Amino acid sequence: MSVLTSLSNPKVKEAVKLRSNPCRRQPRRFLIDGQREILRAVQSGISIVEIFTVLPPQEFGKFTISGTAVYQVTAPVLNKIAFGERNEGIVAVAEEPDCSLELFETKIAAAVSPLLAVIEKPEKPGNIGAVFRSADGAGVCGIMLADTRVHPFHANAIRSSMGTVFHVPVVSRSAADVKRWLQDRHIQIAAAWCSGTAVKYTEVDFRKPTAVVLGNEAEGLSPLWGENDVIKVTLPMSGIADSLNVSAAAGILFYEAQRQRSLR
Amino acid sequence: MSVLTSLSNPKVKEAVKLRSNPCRRQPRRFLIDGQREILRAVQSGISIVEIFTVLPPQEFGKFTISGTAVYQVTAPVLNKIAFGERNEGIVAVAEEPDCSLELFETKIAAAVSPLLAVIEKPEKPGNIGAVFRSADGAGVCGIMLADTRVHPFHANAIRSSMGTVFHVPVVSRSAADVKRWLQDRHIQIAAAWCSGTAVKYTEVDFRKPTAVVLGNEAEGLSPLWGENDVIKVTLPMSGIADSLNVSAAAGILFYEAQRQRSLR
Repeated sequence: MSVLTSLSNPKVKEAVKLRSNPCRRQPRRFLIDGQREILRAVQSGISIVEIFTVLPPQEFGKFTISGTAVYQVTAPVLNKIAFGERNEGIVAVAEEPDCSLELFETKIAAAVSPLLAVIEKPEKPGNIGAVFRSADGAGVCGIMLADTRVHPFHANAIRSSMGTVFHVPVVSRSAADVKRWLQDRHIQIAAAWCSGTAVKYTEVDFRKPTAVVLGNEAEGLSPLWGENDVIKVTLPMSGIADSLNVSAAAGILFYEAQRQRSLR
Repeated sequence: MSVLTSLSNPKVKEAVKLRSNPCRRQPRRFLIDGQREILRAVQSGISIVEIFTVLPPQEFGKFTISGTAVYQVTAPVLNKIAFGERNEGIVAVAEEPDCSLELFETKIAAAVSPLLAVIEKPEKPGNIGAVFRSADGAGVCGIMLADTRVHPFHANAIRSSMGTVFHVPVVSRSAADVKRWLQDRHIQIAAAWCSGTAVKYTEVDFRKPTAVVLGNEAEGLSPLWGENDVIKVTLPMSGIADSLNVSAAAGILFYEAQRQRSLR
């Protein structure tokens, strides 16, 4: 196998372009950095198209699937493709999986009483990733991004999710569509509000099919999630701050649901 | 009141120096960025020595205490003092409060059954801050930093804590000293382990005086917290990841303690 040494190699240039614009064609392609993250993508059935690596052949086999093109490159070439300061010796070009609502619904259907999460207008990719990581741990069976401008496969989301972003089914729609979809399926909606006439989170019956709705820290939730058909949920705040960060609130709510569901 | 316009003004140069070296004299001084953070420092009894601001006098009164010197400055001067990209029109020079174990003990003494947190070898200031924010919300009455190289009043810790780092009593000691201090006071130690023969976190009796011990994500906890006199606590992990991020784990454990304590 020859080693790519040139930054102007067309394959290299194409991969570098994906960094700034991961969505140029169908099926869309995006980059995955990090050995653990690539491995979790492979385990989750993500199609790995190309691998750029400085690792020897015996080390990169587990990161490839049938049909993956492997390019051994020099360190400067990999540095050019890798995200920020991060370089674990390997970067993958992957195909965006099917994130349709139809497939999402099929995946959710297996759950007797689905536990879902909705993140409205997430601002930071890192926050999305952190919510995925807690959702994966607590057994949340799907995440719906509502009115998002941030892509769940952004490098920072992948990183802070530890690759769980590939494992938890995800879909992205308008907030109104998400709410209607949940209501059509008789899934109770529990939206996390910082204040107002809200129910303490431990008093919500999370054993029912439930979607936990989280807002962004700057703006909070839109009025859609304050209507009477939504359970407004609050966490007790004992100190001087009036809110938790979104990933902490997510973790606490998901694990409260998990706790209730594990009781006989 | 005159406006400082020069970057070479000695007061300005001294403040800028504090950014890279916040601990040059006794009592040590450090910088606080952000209106909310300065306000919470004032509310928490932190001594504000100087204020550099572009705000008009009617707006900065709430950020000062008796004896605070206020310097109105130009935008370029404030940009030089402010942290990173952040500039809310005001930066404070504060005196480090008394973080002795004696004062910590006095503050803890008020709690009938203290709930404490220990963070061992925290790596990122942002993680420390996130743990403080959840601790403040859940009513944790003190945080002990064990073997830390990161200062709790680092700009990123202040920021991610939303200023709660000033409100929750904090002390910094060696891990061995922290453990001995807890044992001498008959405070049960519940250390968060990812694996091994551990007790599910909901089965720990958090109504007892308890210290929740959190490790850093790269190294985990040191063997000190795996000894038989420590309750090894685990959170169920239902997905592909084998751990939660430290601030999510902290939030879940603190709020489980809060939940148990709020039951009749």
